[in-house]
Amino acid sequence: MMFTNQYPLPYVAVIFSSQRTTQDEEGYQKMAEKMEKLASVQPGFLGIESVRNAEGCGITVSYWSTLEDVKQWKSHPAHQKAQDMGKAIWYSAYETKICSVKHQY
Amino acid sequence: MMFTNQYPLPYVAVIFSSQRTTQDEEGYQKMAEKMEKLASVQPGFLGIESVRNAEGCGITVSYWSTLEDVKQWKSHPAHQKAQDMGKAIWYSAYETKICSVKHQY
Repeated sequence: MMFTNQYPLPYVAVIFSSQRTTQDEEGYQKMAEKMEKLASVQPGFLGIESVRNAEGCGITVSYWSTLEDVKQWKSHPAHQKAQDMGKAIWYSAYETKICSVKHQY
Repeated sequence: MMFTNQYPLPYVAVIFSSQRTTQDEEGYQKMAEKMEKLASVQPGFLGIESVRNAEGCGITVSYWSTLEDVKQWKSHPAHQKAQDMGKAIWYSAYETKICSVKHQY
């Protein structure tokens, strides 16, 4: 995982906060790795930072050049499937925030 | 910790990504709790989400009404002291990104 990187301003940050259920850790881990790899080759992908603690609270922030890139990735068929499985099995709660990054230091 | 909350748009997100050193866990924990309490009573504070994993990678996102609120909190004397100690002792790397939240779902 890349961490504490900067990118050329302005760009877009997607903050995904989530609470894992206790179900299907193996399937979840496989999918998370697959999605991180797939995201990283999409147009406009800049980077990703992801942390989850022992209680299953996680924050993933992905960085993209434009809002259009974020929309494309959200609607990617394989990502859509992962989102559906997240809702059904892996997350008890989650929230997505789309942000324009204005400053970094 | 509050998690997966929404706030009235538009608002500001401060993404703080950090790598802890292995030094002074007790002092760090005390300060982190103190700063979270102090932040929560500042003007414009909306909420905070914070996760750190066993390897010391952490992401904290705090949410504020306006950019001016973020500036005021950054320059708060007690927070300044905490930032100085973070640089000197607690973090081997860190990065702050100031963002305008545009959408949430």
